[in-house]
Amino acid sequence: MNKHDLMEIFRQKEDFFINDWKDFLSFSSVSADPLHNEDCIRCAEWLAAHLENIGFESRLLETSGKPVVFAERRGLDSKPVILFYGHYDVQPVDPLEKWETPPFKPSIRNGRVYARGAEDNKGQVMFTIKALQTLIEADALDATVKIIIEGEEENGSRGIKSSLDKWKDFLAANILMVADTCIAPSGAPAITMGLRGIGHLTITLSGLRNDLHSGVHGGLCPNPAEEIARLIATIRNRDGSIAVEGFLDGIIPPSEAELEAANSLSRSDEEYISETGVPPVAGEKELSMAERTGFRPSIDVNGISGGYSGHGTKTIIPASAMVKLSMRLVPGQDPEGALYALKKHFEKHAPAGLRMEMSDEGIGGPGFRLKMESGLATKAAAVLASISEKEPVYLWEGASIPVVSSLASEVGAEPLLVGFGTAEDKIHAPNESFSIKSFEQGYLYTALIIQEF
Amino acid sequence: MNKHDLMEIFRQKEDFFINDWKDFLSFSSVSADPLHNEDCIRCAEWLAAHLENIGFESRLLETSGKPVVFAERRGLDSKPVILFYGHYDVQPVDPLEKWETPPFKPSIRNGRVYARGAEDNKGQVMFTIKALQTLIEADALDATVKIIIEGEEENGSRGIKSSLDKWKDFLAANILMVADTCIAPSGAPAITMGLRGIGHLTITLSGLRNDLHSGVHGGLCPNPAEEIARLIATIRNRDGSIAVEGFLDGIIPPSEAELEAANSLSRSDEEYISETGVPPVAGEKELSMAERTGFRPSIDVNGISGGYSGHGTKTIIPASAMVKLSMRLVPGQDPEGALYALKKHFEKHAPAGLRMEMSDEGIGGPGFRLKMESGLATKAAAVLASISEKEPVYLWEGASIPVVSSLASEVGAEPLLVGFGTAEDKIHAPNESFSIKSFEQGYLYTALIIQEF
Repeated sequence: MNKHDLMEIFRQKEDFFINDWKDFLSFSSVSADPLHNEDCIRCAEWLAAHLENIGFESRLLETSGKPVVFAERRGLDSKPVILFYGHYDVQPVDPLEKWETPPFKPSIRNGRVYARGAEDNKGQVMFTIKALQTLIEADALDATVKIIIEGEEENGSRGIKSSLDKWKDFLAANILMVADTCIAPSGAPAITMGLRGIGHLTITLSGLRNDLHSGVHGGLCPNPAEEIARLIATIRNRDGSIAVEGFLDGIIPPSEAELEAANSLSRSDEEYISETGVPPVAGEKELSMAERTGFRPSIDVNGISGGYSGHGTKTIIPASAMVKLSMRLVPGQDPEGALYALKKHFEKHAPAGLRMEMSDEGIGGPGFRLKMESGLATKAAAVLASISEKEPVYLWEGASIPVVSSLASEVGAEPLLVGFGTAEDKIHAPNESFSIKSFEQGYLYTALIIQEF
Repeated sequence: MNKHDLMEIFRQKEDFFINDWKDFLSFSSVSADPLHNEDCIRCAEWLAAHLENIGFESRLLETSGKPVVFAERRGLDSKPVILFYGHYDVQPVDPLEKWETPPFKPSIRNGRVYARGAEDNKGQVMFTIKALQTLIEADALDATVKIIIEGEEENGSRGIKSSLDKWKDFLAANILMVADTCIAPSGAPAITMGLRGIGHLTITLSGLRNDLHSGVHGGLCPNPAEEIARLIATIRNRDGSIAVEGFLDGIIPPSEAELEAANSLSRSDEEYISETGVPPVAGEKELSMAERTGFRPSIDVNGISGGYSGHGTKTIIPASAMVKLSMRLVPGQDPEGALYALKKHFEKHAPAGLRMEMSDEGIGGPGFRLKMESGLATKAAAVLASISEKEPVYLWEGASIPVVSSLASEVGAEPLLVGFGTAEDKIHAPNESFSIKSFEQGYLYTALIIQEF
């Protein structure tokens, strides 16, 4: 099937495709919140049934956490085996009051579908499924296709990671396709050549019997909210570099070719401000934006809390305070080693008089990079060039898809990461959305590249 | 009426006294929260009616904020005029889930009344009223008594402060009595010789269009939660002293006699730990505990928030972050000047790339100290000695009763601060309570000292 056949079918079936997409989006499959456990399970069951309906054999794989949806359709032995990875879980929705329409009641405005997960990752999973369905219905799919969709990507991927070892035989594949990334900020289609790894750490300071009166105890009692702030302030040096001893050990610097390719896409400060509202002034300011997010690690405060933050004033020393940190890792950094270095650092700076507890929510996975000379990347670039007015580019992204690196190595597949997200999609934030146009691009790319293999 | 008459009456009327006290406590008069505005007004109306019932002429004085309850009972011109000051508003109740019984449904357990405001200040106001009622009913009150009970003490006392100038004629008095303080940690009755002043400042950092993905933007985008932490970390030097330029200007050090009297009551670290759960390691560690809270200022983090603090992980750069600070001031510090110095300090350390907003919720009032040679203090000490097994002591407290200092000077009265709170009362925290025994002590003291004037 060529591009024009596929575009014609998309026009005919668009409404059906969008309805399936909206059904998928209506499950509040927030993996971070135990209250949504049932919603995650119902979402996985719906997805398995959907894959069965379009011609796959599917089942749920039990894990220590959320179930993983697995589906397979056998093809010719002479063809490479394709494994598609995605996730059906989504980020939490708060602050809920900032959503214009409810996050789990998908709504279409100006050619975009609005819902939590509209893009990340349900939208990109759904265009992949619709492309596969189209190929099956046209009898144009002759390779073996396996699909694995997990439910804990937004919360550490623990279940899938601890099971990979026992699943690797039936997951065996030649190509690992992932659609969980973005196009270039310029609008050019993109092949993601690298992702950062991720790990999490929560620190809690406590010890006070209860909130204490700030008049009676101010200047005597150690203040957990003040001390958690002091801990955070030790993470970076004045120049923005990370001050944690041992954290940067082993980093593999980019090659000249990688750096040049990455820098060729660097945005201006003005473009960054117009996208985010703020200038790109964090981190190692002497490095380009592309180098900072693509090839350097980062430690980020995801949340901080302690004491009173309501109306007016409340004159207390808070009984406890907490910070949630994530770290983004690059190739060469050992994730366990980096987490260990971070914990050691906070132990060294532990405030006097308070109880400090650190709980790591697990290592998501290491950073990884593909070789620029990969044959798959070249094929994907050709397909992307054929469906886009802009020349495809190579991207080294700052984000993480925790399990991709381990999945590729366990099942022996070469990864190919092409996604159709944009900054406008606001993933992880209120009013997440995905344009129907991007959905169609993803659909065309997926159906075409599979025929190329 | 002597101590024995009063104790006998207390035994007869205890149930009635406690019922009135519980009625007073059932109003959720949280001044910091606009949602409780009506509850504050109903509380003030109830209180005015109650004072009318026991023999005062009462009325509500309108202010820019909550109404102030004013009551008066004329006596002999030959006697000194006594003005009693208190407050009917209370602190917010959160975290609500930590209350064993609802904060506005007073409950008695082990000889203590549990409710928000049980001690601070409704309990101490109520024993004063019951003492006055007893004297009136026994025809033993011949001095003119004025009562002023405000509704914004826990939230800056703005209404009363901005009205004092026009009220000062009808408030004119010789003695300003306040029952909003504590006994000594040793259990000895105490005359409070000094209080710290108070001011508030909230800082918000923002500028991001929304929460941003911490992978895509980590190490590029300035992080409001990280930067608010860095701001907080600039407040103190490593040795615990305040690093804010100009903040300490003008401080009047304690006299040798004051310092000696204050230090004679210093607790051991062990006593402090057993009361609070933590050692007294904050502030200027080379100074005694009594000196740090009685004679030195403090800047305290009352609350900090930004980003995600729920279950699991959420990989964002928070769109904004906030800190609520209070400052405690000592005599000689100009409150406006101290607040100005604090704002200047944060402007100097303002993070690049973010929007910083500072909103001060007003200056509560300056710090103040009474002279050790005050005749009132000597009289109060004699009364306290007669009703207690322990020798009364002089205290310089770290807490604030914002309006006391301005009220005393505006109406020309000499202040006398004697209160019956203890650490066990947990004011400002969940499960606030006040013992019925302490209530009786306050009742005895008030009835006896008024007869002494």
